[in-house]
Amino acid sequence: MDSKSKLYLSRLLSRVERLETGAALPEIENPQPLGSAFRIGVTGPVGAGKSTLINRLAREFRNLGHTVGIIAVDPSSPFTGGAVLGDRVRMSDLALDEGVFIRSLATRGAFGGLAACAEDAADLVDMFGYNRIIIETVGVGQTEVDIVEACDATMVVLAPESGDDVQAIKAGLMEIADIFAVNKMDIRGADRFLSDLETALAMRDPESRLRAFPVQSNNGTGIRQLTNYLESYFDDARRAGTLTQRRTGQRARRIKRLAKNLLINRLWSRLSVEELTAVVESGLPARDAAAALVEKLVQRG
Amino acid sequence: MDSKSKLYLSRLLSRVERLETGAALPEIENPQPLGSAFRIGVTGPVGAGKSTLINRLAREFRNLGHTVGIIAVDPSSPFTGGAVLGDRVRMSDLALDEGVFIRSLATRGAFGGLAACAEDAADLVDMFGYNRIIIETVGVGQTEVDIVEACDATMVVLAPESGDDVQAIKAGLMEIADIFAVNKMDIRGADRFLSDLETALAMRDPESRLRAFPVQSNNGTGIRQLTNYLESYFDDARRAGTLTQRRTGQRARRIKRLAKNLLINRLWSRLSVEELTAVVESGLPARDAAAALVEKLVQRG
Repeated sequence: MDSKSKLYLSRLLSRVERLETGAALPEIENPQPLGSAFRIGVTGPVGAGKSTLINRLAREFRNLGHTVGIIAVDPSSPFTGGAVLGDRVRMSDLALDEGVFIRSLATRGAFGGLAACAEDAADLVDMFGYNRIIIETVGVGQTEVDIVEACDATMVVLAPESGDDVQAIKAGLMEIADIFAVNKMDIRGADRFLSDLETALAMRDPESRLRAFPVQSNNGTGIRQLTNYLESYFDDARRAGTLTQRRTGQRARRIKRLAKNLLINRLWSRLSVEELTAVVESGLPARDAAAALVEKLVQRG
Repeated sequence: MDSKSKLYLSRLLSRVERLETGAALPEIENPQPLGSAFRIGVTGPVGAGKSTLINRLAREFRNLGHTVGIIAVDPSSPFTGGAVLGDRVRMSDLALDEGVFIRSLATRGAFGGLAACAEDAADLVDMFGYNRIIIETVGVGQTEVDIVEACDATMVVLAPESGDDVQAIKAGLMEIADIFAVNKMDIRGADRFLSDLETALAMRDPESRLRAFPVQSNNGTGIRQLTNYLESYFDDARRAGTLTQRRTGQRARRIKRLAKNLLINRLWSRLSVEELTAVVESGLPARDAAAALVEKLVQRG
């Protein structure tokens, strides 16, 4: 990927970002067929070391001969400029690699706009020929969960920090994970944390194929094993047909979300400022005022 | 507030929580007039010590003779059960106080459902006679920002942790703050962090009345000053009329949000599963498929 193409991709992404509810994707010369790339959603609490892990993962994918696109939707990510200087230097080192494209998306966009935007961004990066796409979010809000759920695999990154015992892990994070990475295995108590997690996974579902990988992003320990597992996960899902199945479900959710955004934008524009002001200044309770507005809009057709 | 009323309030809140887009508020005997309570939104990064600070603040409000309602929308909050054991014990100590009501809200609800839910919850707690309401969120997603923006004052809690230099503070957090609390002042480098923050605030706007308060939630240092300032902030806003002005703007945003939710629910229910499936299975790009669905819904009226 030459720097000219990268610049063009960057501009297209800015366009996607500005048009929250989205425009049609542009025509691109000789696009890679959509869906060629393996999309990995990476989430987990702040401080688990997601960005450093992604950095390692990207290098390992490069060693395997892949090109890599990184989309960061995490405001605390060094990819988006939210971290300490040392991290940023290491990240820009990665950015110099011709086969790596890094982009952050702003966390704006009410009404699912950001999730729609992240999906469009991933499509564009895919069409430009990157074949491993990593999307980073911080696993807190519903939007962030929507984003990682739109990937082919969701990796939850945890670290055995003080107070973060396995029981305290948000149930939501357990439910969306396809793969766990337990980072910072050099911390005291890490082995215990890992075995507690494995026990918890086994107790939830004895048939579960959910794996937890111990890694150390600071020196690269365990990254190769994790990468190989991700590769085999993708190959297996493709062969078994579960990849197609998953993508069909994602497509349904995506169309619904887009349609809801379009619907709101279309109807809302028919409301005048005066009409809105009149309702706000009425003494009606908020819910009744809202219902009155909706009545107006729906009758207008 | 006797335990019977608390139980009733709790049940009403569960109802609000289940009906994401909300039902009309119930009739309550002798309600406190809506808007009597001072609502304080508390946000900031994970690990800044928001919950411990809120605990201290609540006790101080109690000392001043107020009753206190705490609504936690932060999944990592000990109020919602997401933290270490020691914290939970301290919190339940607070919960034994008759003049304190604590409630957590689940972080579900796409399409602004959670923000609507938090506003309804605050209204209920207000009507039940609590006159200081603290709403805790973790400052990441748009929903969380919406929630604190619906309060009378927004307090951003920061801690001088490693790597968290003032430049790295999310611009969004700076913009929504009415008051800063710099917690963990016993950490090395805390004084520097505080003075950097004050400089940054002065540089952004030399006329700014935005104050940063140094506190130490672990031993209570600075909490009285912070509480007194919050009290005077509320009194001043009430007297100057800025409170009414702010609440009118919030009411407009709230009605808009509610109306959008109602609109979606009303129109979406007219779509059959078959219609949706047909569009998903069409080979159309997602955006075109969504546009086709919207066309159908709008024509149906």
